[in-house]
Formats: sequence, structure tokens, C-alpha cells
Amino acid sequence: MSEHVVVIGAVALGPKAACRFKRIRQDAKVTLIDRDEIFSYGGCGIPYFVSGDVTDANQLRTTAFHMVRDEPFFQDIKGVDVLSSTEATKIDRENKQVHVTDLKTGKKSVIDYDQLVIGTGATPRKLNLPGEELENVFYVGNMHDAEKIKAGVTSGKYGKAVVVGAGFIGLEMAEAFADMWGIETTVVEIFEQILPRMCTPVLAKMGQTHMEEQGVAFKLGQTVSRIEGNGKVERVVTSDGEIEADIVIISAGVIPNDKLARECGLECSERGGIIVDEFMRTSDPLIYSGGDCVIIKNAVDDSPMFLPMGSMANRQGRVIGGNLAGRNETFPAAAGSWVVKLFEKSMAGTGMSLGAAKQAGFDAVSVMLIMADRAHFYPVKDMMTLEMVVDKATRRVLGLQGYAGSGDAMVGRINAVAGIMKYKPVIEDVSNLEVAYSPPFASAMDVLNAIANMADNALAGMNHGHGPDVFAEYWADRESGDYCFLDVREYADAEPFLTKYPEHWRNIPQGEIPKRFEELPKDKKLVLICNTGGRSYEAQIMLDALGFKEVLNTQGGMAVLKAFGVDI
Amino acid sequence: MSEHVVVIGAVALGPKAACRFKRIRQDAKVTLIDRDEIFSYGGCGIPYFVSGDVTDANQLRTTAFHMVRDEPFFQDIKGVDVLSSTEATKIDRENKQVHVTDLKTGKKSVIDYDQLVIGTGATPRKLNLPGEELENVFYVGNMHDAEKIKAGVTSGKYGKAVVVGAGFIGLEMAEAFADMWGIETTVVEIFEQILPRMCTPVLAKMGQTHMEEQGVAFKLGQTVSRIEGNGKVERVVTSDGEIEADIVIISAGVIPNDKLARECGLECSERGGIIVDEFMRTSDPLIYSGGDCVIIKNAVDDSPMFLPMGSMANRQGRVIGGNLAGRNETFPAAAGSWVVKLFEKSMAGTGMSLGAAKQAGFDAVSVMLIMADRAHFYPVKDMMTLEMVVDKATRRVLGLQGYAGSGDAMVGRINAVAGIMKYKPVIEDVSNLEVAYSPPFASAMDVLNAIANMADNALAGMNHGHGPDVFAEYWADRESGDYCFLDVREYADAEPFLTKYPEHWRNIPQGEIPKRFEELPKDKKLVLICNTGGRSYEAQIMLDALGFKEVLNTQGGMAVLKAFGVDI
Repeated sequence: MSEHVVVIGAVALGPKAACRFKRIRQDAKVTLIDRDEIFSYGGCGIPYFVSGDVTDANQLRTTAFHMVRDEPFFQDIKGVDVLSSTEATKIDRENKQVHVTDLKTGKKSVIDYDQLVIGTGATPRKLNLPGEELENVFYVGNMHDAEKIKAGVTSGKYGKAVVVGAGFIGLEMAEAFADMWGIETTVVEIFEQILPRMCTPVLAKMGQTHMEEQGVAFKLGQTVSRIEGNGKVERVVTSDGEIEADIVIISAGVIPNDKLARECGLECSERGGIIVDEFMRTSDPLIYSGGDCVIIKNAVDDSPMFLPMGSMANRQGRVIGGNLAGRNETFPAAAGSWVVKLFEKSMAGTGMSLGAAKQAGFDAVSVMLIMADRAHFYPVKDMMTLEMVVDKATRRVLGLQGYAGSGDAMVGRINAVAGIMKYKPVIEDVSNLEVAYSPPFASAMDVLNAIANMADNALAGMNHGHGPDVFAEYWADRESGDYCFLDVREYADAEPFLTKYPEHWRNIPQGEIPKRFEELPKDKKLVLICNTGGRSYEAQIMLDALGFKEVLNTQGGMAVLKAFGVDI
Repeated sequence: MSEHVVVIGAVALGPKAACRFKRIRQDAKVTLIDRDEIFSYGGCGIPYFVSGDVTDANQLRTTAFHMVRDEPFFQDIKGVDVLSSTEATKIDRENKQVHVTDLKTGKKSVIDYDQLVIGTGATPRKLNLPGEELENVFYVGNMHDAEKIKAGVTSGKYGKAVVVGAGFIGLEMAEAFADMWGIETTVVEIFEQILPRMCTPVLAKMGQTHMEEQGVAFKLGQTVSRIEGNGKVERVVTSDGEIEADIVIISAGVIPNDKLARECGLECSERGGIIVDEFMRTSDPLIYSGGDCVIIKNAVDDSPMFLPMGSMANRQGRVIGGNLAGRNETFPAAAGSWVVKLFEKSMAGTGMSLGAAKQAGFDAVSVMLIMADRAHFYPVKDMMTLEMVVDKATRRVLGLQGYAGSGDAMVGRINAVAGIMKYKPVIEDVSNLEVAYSPPFASAMDVLNAIANMADNALAGMNHGHGPDVFAEYWADRESGDYCFLDVREYADAEPFLTKYPEHWRNIPQGEIPKRFEELPKDKKLVLICNTGGRSYEAQIMLDALGFKEVLNTQGGMAVLKAFGVDI
């Protein structure tokens, strides 16, 4: 009898592992089990289905050549049997059996396996709020949720939406509502920033500011107490007040579905998630697992990490498929790369944010740079802001995050750093990282190299100063007389500010500093600023050498202040 | 007396090294020498100046904040002295002196140095063709050439152009002429492909086909014998005939300007170029060099490499600036990344092409894949073709090249592989490379991971077949009866071909193969094809398992045939 591989869960990891194994071992029998009747879909596409970018739900279930990945597809094209609407209720490792229940008939049965794959994914984290059961309150867990949300949206019955949670899905859903359907949308987030843990509050504020310009409202640092309404949702009550809502989306993260694994005694993390080795093998050598239900290794510090992303599931699924067939393939670690489109801008990152790095015990600092994403003389370009997180003592690059007009261009820099993350790179590895160059695509000294150079300069004490958040504090305190705000751009650029703030704004163009530095007070903090922080950096070096004691460069300059939303 | 650093050459490397050093060592004196009166410009922007994308030549000499990098700029802003229109004629290492001649006055003098930087760049390779001296025959060596070409182009006096050399500059100039100025343009190339040595003829043909569709003509495998005309150029005579021309651009590569270095006894390569260590130090510890006049190390096989690119010069310049100040910075090696925009498409690469890898002694093979550059269900997307070069025995990834609609998206994949090249990656390192994922920017199984998976499948013997060039040979030989061309797409896709080629085209949709394989001949080569090579790969696996002996997958499918220009 041929070997039988059973795969529990058929969304992303399961089908990949099953089909890969079957391609290598055409003689084997493979059975995919899923409790849903809809399976093998691109769940990450749900916000784009809701927005209308993806017109038909089936598009998320089709191959690139327009075939729906249903039972006959897997049978005929892939040679894989599918038991849909079938729930795996128990794994009997001793007898190598999976107990299943047909959810349509209620019939129970037992399936023998030689090797098993657990790809049970994750479930939206339930907030269990009073009023969650009201009509038009949704979690975004599967295609059924997606179809209900889309049906309501297209019917035009929602005028106001509240999204709870400013993570990836929350922000994507907010964009979908506001951009394509003109729904008045408010995002509520318990943390004081969007994308908590993914980037600094400074970078997050840039994304938030852009979304606000596009009409999305944010209530940060607020918890939701309850949802109210008469049958249907009517309002969301938060720690700070009430928000009217015809629809509520709750996207507060996901938790790994490790129950089956846990109950059969497989090693799991205390905080949730099945533990696997680099071969994606569980504590039972006949059972593999991957995707949203496992814990993997963080390439930055080798710590355990939960990284529920479709891309992880696909790559891990392929590794499992190979290992089921006796190959020794590995998935060593992940850097935690991400990218999210927010209307006309994008944010992306890899590795650790500054906050995450500190939490992990690194003595970390970050630097921020804003620069054109290709040759500054090339006519078609966008600005890109990058923030790099480095460890002071070891000079290791711990993370890179960004905010940019061209998400593709930014991803091109993020991927490059993600790729080297497992080699534990230091700053110099990014200073010299070879970004493919010609003027339409990069700068000769590319923004990616430049952010590493800036980190180098910061650690060397050559570039010292602050970001827009600290500038805003200084500026708010300008009446104290402790600061001299010095604009080192040419007069024409500084003139509007000199007129508006005659008492607080000073101007000496950078090139005139050697002749005019004696005009500057020696007893104040010199807060230097220019367009993007380049000239003010050079001015800071000059003034340092001239003996000024407290010279502070506004890193990112006016461009970052504007993106950050400083009102100046 | 303060230390004096002298820098010979002020285009890209020189200014970078000078300014970086000066920023670290504000007390030192730095002198930049250049024989031209125009210096510190972005030479890579010349084609975009000619095209009109860059309207004013000064834009190539300005900073991002619109200041022209002239003598006063370097003096006031950077604290660097400039001697322009000054030629360095001799380096006297014993006395640590540079002999210079003021080209305007003829006055000779001697400059003492403590440390020296040679950034003399490269010069266009002269073909010394009969007729080169005719009016309107240009090399593209500096801004003066650029200004002359641009003046002629804008005056409308050129109807027909010939570009000699199908390298980066040649192709960019051809685009500039044809796209923006409607000039009838022909590119002549001695090799049988565009971008020789940078990619395979197959990939090159895709770029060529696109440029032909945009109106550029190509004469490949032809040498230029002479240029003819009466005062002004009228025609170019090649090994195969004559081409009318009002303007001729000769872009046959560049050769490093190592004369000064060679004459003062610094170690140079036999094939040209100053030899430097990883600190960018020459054989004299007081003299550094970098940019277009040096030989660096190829990250793929640690062999010497000449890589004249503005991005190299900038990064190396920064390293030199640091080392002049006593830091120990390194530029260990380069992968040789490149990207070029060709009208609506782009080509890019890193590492070695298949041909270069074989020449370097690797037992190399390549695989080619065509796929959407982001989630296939996302409405805005382009196709990306990638070709990966791997070493059979060691599974090392030696190079990656591509052709795509979105150059930004392709560069995002190229950079990622470029970044890991110095770590000598194997296929698995790219299979698992963490491309930042969300549907608007990548596929869950991204095109970059997929090309590595394909290389894995090819080396495992699972995916066997051919590219469009070999398909074209088979198809040309279709009357021999040796082949069965089997279209495994659904009937609707195959139908036009069945109608057009009833004798030679067969169709069994992939899913029907298990039931219908007995219809297929056992004594012919089965040449499988689908849209992009995915279904035909799966069909090939099925037919292999069913006992067919010669099953050949057309990798890249119809999409690659079309891009390659196969007339079917």
C-alpha cells in the first residue's frame, strides 16, 4: 500500500505542503482535510475584496490561470484528495490516526496516516466585548466573514464604520471602507500609535497623518468598553467616549490554533503556538506543522516568534512537502518582514522596531532619514523615509522600517536587509549593500546605503540630534528662551518662517556659517534645521568644530516634520 | 601645519572621499584637482539629459537642494579647495608631491600631500574607426560631449542615429533618441545579443524585442568598419552593409585611467586598472584609489573585477574618506548589480550571467520563470521574468537576471540577492528569502522564491525542459515528426493554435492527463506548453510518472515565447 500523508487545514500551508509532496512522490496518497467548504484561498486579499479591487470572492481562490482551487481541482490537477466540511477532532499519535467528523452529516470516522501535517492556522483574537453579537459586528477570520462584509458594503447600508485595532488588517480594512466606499471610518487602537510594535511612534505618525488626510479618523490609546445598538450595532463605547457606527470590524490580532496539537501531547509554547524545529517538524517526528499555528525563530536574536503571514505559510509548506518526501529542507528563521499599503503611501519593515529591540534587551538606537527614492535629478521620484535600528555596542543592524510614496521602491530596500538578517549584519554591511543602480531606480549613494551611513555617523557621535517628535517638544517650549532655532537653508527657503516667527526663527545659510557663526548665542541649544537634515548635519559638524557645545540636528528636517504633522 | 589630503579627479569618487574625510577631520586641508572646468556631476544621468527628462545640464551638477557643486560650493559648504582645469601630470611618491599643470595658463606647479587619493575614472574605449573625426560622431565621456549631443538633438538636425555598442549607455542613448526625439535609431553590436556578458541571449532578446516594438532597430553580430561622410557623418559601414546616420554615438565600454598610477609604480592589473585592497588602499599605503579606475573583488568567486559604476564610486569614496581619517573601513567585494530602463520595460541583474559563470569555470545552469510581480489577484500588476544561474555541484546561486514591466519591483528582488551574494548563498537561501509581503507588493510565494524553487526542481531533475530559444528550434523542425507539441491549457486557450496548426498542435488540459494520456505517442518527444510553464511542469511530472521517456517542459510557456519574439 502506498504511503498516506494526511494534512489538516487547507488554506495556505496545507495545500502547499500537500501538492509539493505529491509532485515529488506521485505514488503516494495525500488527503487534505478542512472544516470549511471554502478552502485554499488568499486570506490576505480579503481587504482588497472588500474594497472592490478584487471583484469576485472566487478570485481569491483561483490560480493565476483562473481555475478555482476546489475539490475537483485538487483531485484532477494536483492528485490530492480533499475532505472539506470535515473537522479533525483528535490526533491519535499512538495508532497514527486522525479522528474526523463530517460537518454536513455528523458522521465520525478515523483516518490512518503515515505522516501528518498540521496546518490549522490561526483565529482572530476575540475581545468578548458586550454587544459583540450585534448585527454588523465582524471579525475578519475567513471568506464567510469577507462575503458578509462585502455584501453589506456594496448594498450601501453603512455610513459609518469603526475598526478596532490598527494593525495590518485593521488599516487595510479602514482604507477599503474610506477609499472605495466613502464610509466615514474611525480606527480605535489601544496603543498610542498605529502598527504598534512594528515601528516607532514617529514613523507610525506619518502613516496616520496620511490616512487622516484621506479622511480616516483615529482614536489612539483608547480601549473599547462595549458595543451598543438595538439589534444592529449603533455605536462603539470607548474609554474616552462614543463613536457612531453602522459596522464594526474587530481586528485585534490572531491566536494560533494549537488545540489539536496540544491535546495530543505535541510540544507547544506557553504563550500559544506549536513548537517546530528548523525542518518544521513537531516533537513527534511523523508530524510536521507550519503557518499561522506555529512558533518559529526570529533571525535577529534567535528568540521564538509568532509570525502569522501567508508568505511564511507558503514557504514553510514547501519545506514540509520536501521533508515529507525524505529531503532535508530547512526553514531556519525569519526576520519578520512586512509591508502595508495605506492609500497613496506605504509602510514596510523588517527585523525589530526600536521598541521591540529594547524589549529584547538590546541597547538600541534608531536614526531616521528622508531622501528621494532614486536619482534626485530624475523627474519621476518619490520621497522615502527610512528608520534603522542598531545596537550601540555591537553595531548590529536590528531592523529597518520605512514610510514612502513608492511601496515597490521601499520593498526593494527592505528585502535587501531582510535577506542578510540571518547573517547578523552590522552597519557596514548595509553601507556597502549593492543596490542595483541607474538613475531611474536608485541614487548613486542610495537611500539604503545612506541610512546605514547615518547610523554610522550617529554611533560615532558625528550626527547628534533628534527626530520630529523631540523637535516638536523644543518648539512647544520656544518661549523658554533655551533654544535657538537655526534654519541653515538659503534665505528664500527660510524667509516665510522668519516672517511668521520673527522672535524664534534664525537663518544662516550653511555656506555662510564660517563667516557668521559669531552671530549665534553660545548659551542656548542650537536646534538646526534644513529641508531633509543633510545641510543641518554639515552645519552641526561645523558648529561643533567651532566650539559650540549644544548643537542639535533635526534629522529628516522640514520634510519629516511635515510628514509627522508638526504644525509649523 | 594641518594634514593635507590631495584628491586627483573630482567627478564621483573624489568629491565623496574629500567631503567625507573633511567632515571627520574639520582641521585638515583637502584639495580636489580636476582637469575639467565642469566636475562633480552625475555622469549616469547623461542619457536622461539627452532625452530631455533632465532639462538643464546643471541639474546633473546640483545637490538635492538645488545648489550647483562648483568651486565656491566646495569651498563654502564643504570646506574643500578645488583646483579645476588643472591636470595632474605626475605623482612623486618619494617626495609626496603631485605635479600639476594649470590648463588655462599653462603654469606648472607642485603640490605636497600627506595622503593622496586617485579618482581618475575611466575613458570611453576608442574604436579608432576611419571617419571617427567626422562631425556628429560622439563618444559619451563627459558633460561637454553631452552638451554637444543635446544641442544637436534639440535643434532637430538629426533624422537618423546609429549607436555603436548595445551596453547600458548605448541602449539608454538609443531610447533617448527614439523615444523623446523621434529619431530613427539603429544599434550596432559586435556580439549576437544586447547587453553581452550581462545576461543570456534569451533574456537579452526580450529586451531587444521590446525596443524593436518601440522603433529601435538592431544590427547584432556586426562590426563597424568605418564611418563615412562629407565633413559630417552620413553613414556607418558595418561588416554586413551600410546604415545611414546623421549622428553616431560610440559606446563601446570604458577603460580605466590608470596611467598616473602606473607611471609612479603603483601596482596595476595587466588588463588595466589600479589594484587596491579591501581598504581601497593602493600598493602605496599613503595612496588610496577607487571608482572607475580600480579593480575590485567579485563577490561571487573572489576574482578581480572591473565595475565602472557611479554607485561603486560613491560607496568606495566614503570608505576612502573614513580611512584617510584613520578608520578601518572596508569595501570587501561587489556582486555586479545593474539595472537599465528600456522604454516601458526594464532589465536588471546581479552576480554572474550564465555565460560569465561558465567562463569563470562553474558548471552552471540557468532556469527561467515568468510570473506576476505581486498577488495574481491584485488588479495592478506586471509580469516579471527572472533567470537564475546556479552551480550544479554546489547548488550555489551565482547570479540572477530579469526582464520586467516594473523595474522597481524587479530591483526589489535583485537587491535582495545582491545583498546575500558575499555570503555565497545556495538555492535554499533564496527559496526562503523573506520578501516583504502583502498583496499589492508581492505574492505569498513570491517570484523570487519561486525562481529558486524552480532551480531546485531543475537540479533535482524534476523540472526538465527548455527555454524559448530551444522551443523555437523544435518548432522550426516540426515537420520532422520527432515532436509532439502538447498544449496542456484548457481547450479555449489552445483552440486558436489547434485551428492554425491542426497537424502539429495537440491539446489535453492538464487535469485530463490521467484519463487521456494513452492518446499520446510514446515514440516522440513530448514538448509541453502552457501559459507560463507551471501547468506544463505539473503535466511533465505526471507524464514522467506514467512512463513517458522524453517529456520536455517549455519553461516560461507562451508568455516567454511572446517576449522572446517566437512567431507562433
